[in-house]
Formats: sequence, C-alpha cells, structure tokens
Amino acid sequence: MINFPTKKTVSSNVLNNDNVKKTSSISNRGMSFEKKINESCEYFRTHGLAVIHKKPTPVRIVKVDYPQRSRAKIIEAYYQVASTTDYNGIYKEKYIDFEAKETSRENYLSFDYIHEHQVKHLIDIVKHGGIGFLLIYFKKRDEVYLYDLEDFLALWTIRKEADARKSIPYEDIKEKGTLVKQGFLPQLEILKAIDEKYFK
Amino acid sequence: MINFPTKKTVSSNVLNNDNVKKTSSISNRGMSFEKKINESCEYFRTHGLAVIHKKPTPVRIVKVDYPQRSRAKIIEAYYQVASTTDYNGIYKEKYIDFEAKETSRENYLSFDYIHEHQVKHLIDIVKHGGIGFLLIYFKKRDEVYLYDLEDFLALWTIRKEADARKSIPYEDIKEKGTLVKQGFLPQLEILKAIDEKYFK
Repeated sequence: MINFPTKKTVSSNVLNNDNVKKTSSISNRGMSFEKKINESCEYFRTHGLAVIHKKPTPVRIVKVDYPQRSRAKIIEAYYQVASTTDYNGIYKEKYIDFEAKETSRENYLSFDYIHEHQVKHLIDIVKHGGIGFLLIYFKKRDEVYLYDLEDFLALWTIRKEADARKSIPYEDIKEKGTLVKQGFLPQLEILKAIDEKYFK
Repeated sequence: MINFPTKKTVSSNVLNNDNVKKTSSISNRGMSFEKKINESCEYFRTHGLAVIHKKPTPVRIVKVDYPQRSRAKIIEAYYQVASTTDYNGIYKEKYIDFEAKETSRENYLSFDYIHEHQVKHLIDIVKHGGIGFLLIYFKKRDEVYLYDLEDFLALWTIRKEADARKSIPYEDIKEKGTLVKQGFLPQLEILKAIDEKYFK
C-alpha cells in the first residue's frame, strides 16, 4: 500500500503490517495513512455507520514451532502478494472495495505501485454492482482523494501505449476525484466522500 | 474454521492455513472442506459469477529477517484471532459474508467453535443490508448446508440460559438450512444455495 522509495524488490506488503517498523512520513501529523484509515473504519463500525475492514496481510507459513505446547510460534514465513485490494465492506447496502495508495510525490501517483490483479479485482467488483475506487494520499500536500475506478481506468488502460502517461497527474485526481476531509473522529471522512460521489 | 478435536488451546487459525499440515478428515474424498470452498470461489470468479475471497489468516509479525537483502523472511510471528468471518464478497449486487464450520459430530454443531465476534460481525453485515450465513459441513454425513444467520441466532441468543442448547442440532440445520449440492465444477454449489435461500 505504501510506496517504498528505495528498494522496489521488497514486497509492499512488508509495509502493510502494523507490527513492522515503518519509514516515517513527512507530513502525516504523527499517524500513518493506513492507521488513519483503520481508525476511521473502526469509528464507522462502532457507530453502526458501515462495516469496512482491512484485509490481513497474506503470509505463506512454512514452519511452525510449539515451544510451550500452548502457543504456536511461526518461525518461517514469507509475505505473499495480495490477490485483492486492502479494504472491503458494506455501506448503505452496497459492497465497497478500495485500495489505499500513498505517494510522496507532489504532482503524480506512479502506476508502478498499482498491481494489475488489484485493478482486475476492482473491475470485477464494479461489474457485479459494487463500488470500487482508490483512496490516494498525497503526503506532501496532506490531501486525500477518493478516485473512482472509472476515472482511473481512463488513464490505466492506455498506459502501455507509446505516448501514454505512466502515472496519474495530481491535477486529474484533484479535478475528477472527491476530496476526503480530514478531522478528528473520524480522522478521514471516507463515508462523506462516498456519499458525495455515489449516493447523491 | 475447522474444529480441532484434541487441543482446544491451539488457535483454530493454525488449521486455516493451506500451507500447514492438517489432520486428515474422514469423508472429504481427498479434499478438505476449506479447499472445496476456495476452489468453488475461484470457479465463480473465473466464470464471472461472483467475487468471493477467503480472507488471509491474520498473523502478528514480530521479527523479520533479510537474509539475502532481496526477500523478507519472517522469523517470529503468531496467529491472531480473526476479527471477522472467513469469506466475503459480492454476488448479484449483494454483499455476501459467511463463516465456514466443519464438524466431525454426526448430530450437532457445537457452539464452542463459533466466536462471539464472528456472530457480531455477521449481525452487523445483515443490519447494513448484506447476506450473512454459516456454511456448515457435517463430515461423517458428507453434507454441506447454508444456515442463515437468523435461524442460527434463534438458538445462539438463548445459549446462556440454563436449559438452553449448547449446540445446533443437525435436524434443525437440515430443516431450516439449504443443502449445498456437491459436484465437480464447482465442488460446492454455494451460489445455487444462495439463490434458493435469498433470491427466490
């Protein structure tokens, strides 16, 4: 989910896990984008507004030890590429599915950090009548946008053409996307943005 | 997901992972219940019928090693209790959510293997307009049932009363539930059972 600036060979899943130390971000006011989303979802759940969860990071477990016979300890495992997006759930009777992307670039989100299988998954969701989008965080600007799958696909589907863009410009996201307001409870007004985009 | 007959202290998640050796079942015709569900879901996805995925087993990662600098190796991790059910997705524009339970008992499914937070999660899903149920496999009978949350709750909510049942009788599941036919492709006719129960 979070862009890893130096070592592209390492699975981005490494950074998805709350228990693994993360590189600190520049302007997240002390809380990572992922944490903000997770806490917002928790707020939505406890207030009966929506049920949205982050999927656990998929891990391939190779060896398990039982040191005290009471608790299984995993001693060899590897991160796996997720086959779906990070978040899904239900809101106002609608299936909701989104992938969260964070960038430290000021003026674009590179396609490098978006996996084909995630896009395919979102397309399938929308085909079946669900709502699918990207939740994009521009760190330096401290701005979050809901960017609908359809707007994304307009650029994504031609990405391999010679003169096509290899990224989504900030201006496009700002123009077509929906600004997700930031606050205290919830930290991210994701549901209000969904209302504005899909339930108007 | 799968009942563990001898050691209740070990997390049931241990048996959820495809890569960890499982106790062999009696009458699964060589394929575990979980695998049958997963392959059926894959069939539904590849044929554009529904998008249903099993959630990864949640793991708390404590230590990660980078032996070759190219691939992260997890060397200390622990199974976590899942906060939701095993499966969710979308079918005919509806949010679908279910927990799979397998029992080697012939005449009942014990409440012991059903977690309160999973029931709470299913209740929330139904409140928001989704479809929630248990998918129950009676190993010895080689029978699978879709058992609607509402039918389940009728027994579950009174489980702590003195004269209440501590399990769901097979007869109740057979009477109120919907038989999920078993075949080859898909192995489990889950969507047909959903049609019969919810889309008639």
